[in-house]
Amino acid sequence: MNEAGRRMAAEIAEQPGIWQGLLQADPGQFDAAAAAIRARSPRFVLLLARGTSDHAALYAKYLVEIRLALPAGLVSPSTMTAYAARPDLQDVLVLAVSQSGGSTDLVDTLAVARAQGALTVAVTNDPSSPLARAAEIGVDVSAGTEQAVAATKSYTAQLLALYLMLERVRGGDPAPALALPRLGEQVLQLNVVMAEHAARYRFAQRMVVTGRGYSYPTAREAALKLMETSYLSAQAFSAADLLHGPVATLDAAMPVVAVVSDGVGGRLMDPVLPRLRATGADLLLVGSAPSVAAAPGGVVLPGGVPEELAPLLEIIPLQYLALHLAVGRGDDPDAPRGLSKVTRTV
Amino acid sequence: MNEAGRRMAAEIAEQPGIWQGLLQADPGQFDAAAAAIRARSPRFVLLLARGTSDHAALYAKYLVEIRLALPAGLVSPSTMTAYAARPDLQDVLVLAVSQSGGSTDLVDTLAVARAQGALTVAVTNDPSSPLARAAEIGVDVSAGTEQAVAATKSYTAQLLALYLMLERVRGGDPAPALALPRLGEQVLQLNVVMAEHAARYRFAQRMVVTGRGYSYPTAREAALKLMETSYLSAQAFSAADLLHGPVATLDAAMPVVAVVSDGVGGRLMDPVLPRLRATGADLLLVGSAPSVAAAPGGVVLPGGVPEELAPLLEIIPLQYLALHLAVGRGDDPDAPRGLSKVTRTV
Repeated sequence: MNEAGRRMAAEIAEQPGIWQGLLQADPGQFDAAAAAIRARSPRFVLLLARGTSDHAALYAKYLVEIRLALPAGLVSPSTMTAYAARPDLQDVLVLAVSQSGGSTDLVDTLAVARAQGALTVAVTNDPSSPLARAAEIGVDVSAGTEQAVAATKSYTAQLLALYLMLERVRGGDPAPALALPRLGEQVLQLNVVMAEHAARYRFAQRMVVTGRGYSYPTAREAALKLMETSYLSAQAFSAADLLHGPVATLDAAMPVVAVVSDGVGGRLMDPVLPRLRATGADLLLVGSAPSVAAAPGGVVLPGGVPEELAPLLEIIPLQYLALHLAVGRGDDPDAPRGLSKVTRTV
Repeated sequence: MNEAGRRMAAEIAEQPGIWQGLLQADPGQFDAAAAAIRARSPRFVLLLARGTSDHAALYAKYLVEIRLALPAGLVSPSTMTAYAARPDLQDVLVLAVSQSGGSTDLVDTLAVARAQGALTVAVTNDPSSPLARAAEIGVDVSAGTEQAVAATKSYTAQLLALYLMLERVRGGDPAPALALPRLGEQVLQLNVVMAEHAARYRFAQRMVVTGRGYSYPTAREAALKLMETSYLSAQAFSAADLLHGPVATLDAAMPVVAVVSDGVGGRLMDPVLPRLRATGADLLLVGSAPSVAAAPGGVVLPGGVPEELAPLLEIIPLQYLALHLAVGRGDDPDAPRGLSKVTRTV
């Protein structure tokens, strides 16, 4: 008999150790992948993913646009499969991200992209998966078997693998990542306080999660965890997009979680927070910026982390929030209704 | 004294006439823009937009990927402004879409893109706007002044302008669009039936809107209209992404609107609809596929339209749904709380 959420809780707690493993195995596979990418000098990067992995891909899109200074896009997978588009992909890097490596539409799109001249890289948690085999270069995020349907450890392992690979493409020094396992262990201590926050949301049917820059993928992933485990209508918006319409939905009955890290993304939130407070919405700040510590009920994360690494830490309290909210409502986040571990779509 | 929703209702009804005007003015500005784009032979296309215009940009992304067979991406505007990224944009077409042409972050991003070597095109409803002036080429969607805060007529005018321009880039024949004004007049007759549907949703706090292919932008735009006017937590998902997690939120208390057109996008919905029905969710189908006519309560749109033009017709009943739901709840969709016509973000 499984205790509800036991697997998800265990996998959340595994994350710092998995990062440590990836960092110790570094530079091996990341150097090799980066060298192959540099050798091809891509002009454009296309990201290919679905679900949680799509949020890791969105994180990679920020790294590519900001740190590699390359234009990038997220592929709409149906265009190369169902619509049979055959774009010229010379000089294009196609970077696929998938936990299982088993989604048929991603495998088919990657195969078309490779035939159309793209350099194809697959970042997966299974180096023997169809997606990894279909790609020219495979990167293994080495998160171990993930048993809870709601992905947690595979997500942050994807983030770190993408960072380590893309920093090497840039010729940068990924040393700041070495602090992550220790900081991750600190953040795991938020488990108890997030259970208390979850109790406040017991009767919420909807929620808004927002952030900017590198924290926008965090907002997207947090919303998906809340949808998958607690069946909340959790909506994620970049704070700029939020002001372009969805802010109208906010009132005192709407819980809002704002992810506010040190750095540019957090500073972009400064003018947004008063607008959110003015709606009367219930606001919970999560992050490392000073504004979080000053907020009533803010969840404070360790500072001093470059903002491009903050997403690994930021998501942990929000994973716990989803876990505890689901368990508190009598649901089992290890096996949400209507979902299975490998989703097959065409 | 303004009757609630009077402006939005009037602007919805203006749409077929605005399309007629654009088609009569064609080919003038579209030929000129297309010739300039062809002369530069772009290898990649970046779309730049926010809010409703972002959904027109997403529609253009499908046109570019499928019909022009070019890789494309949606720019994260903060990367070139707040994060100061300076990508090499030689061979890149940057296509900005904005009703007002006044959003500072879009203007700044376009200026950076132009300086970095991109060919810049701005599709706006105001040829004297800062965005139109910052671009090498301006395209005027000629929708006339839009007074309701919730954009309606400017959205479908953007769709048609993008179609007419991009079809000419392709060297195709945009003649199928000539049928749109007449078909649009037919679709306006759904006003009354959508008021009846709106009454059923009177107490809904959340909703899911889904579609695939060209109908995915329709789902996104419908959800935004419902958020802006009726303060619903309306979530849009491509039907494939819906199955990767958010499907867990569906049960008998969740209203789902599925946009199902003739063509590839509609066929991709065929395996999804039984999955949605199995959740017990309240399902309303909107579109031109035979499955819509067969569904209880399906809203049937005229058939025989190429699927890349269906988004102009599909959105109309959903605009009416948002209008009537807001008015029925005592809200004024012409002036939603917390919003103004030009949103300024950095």
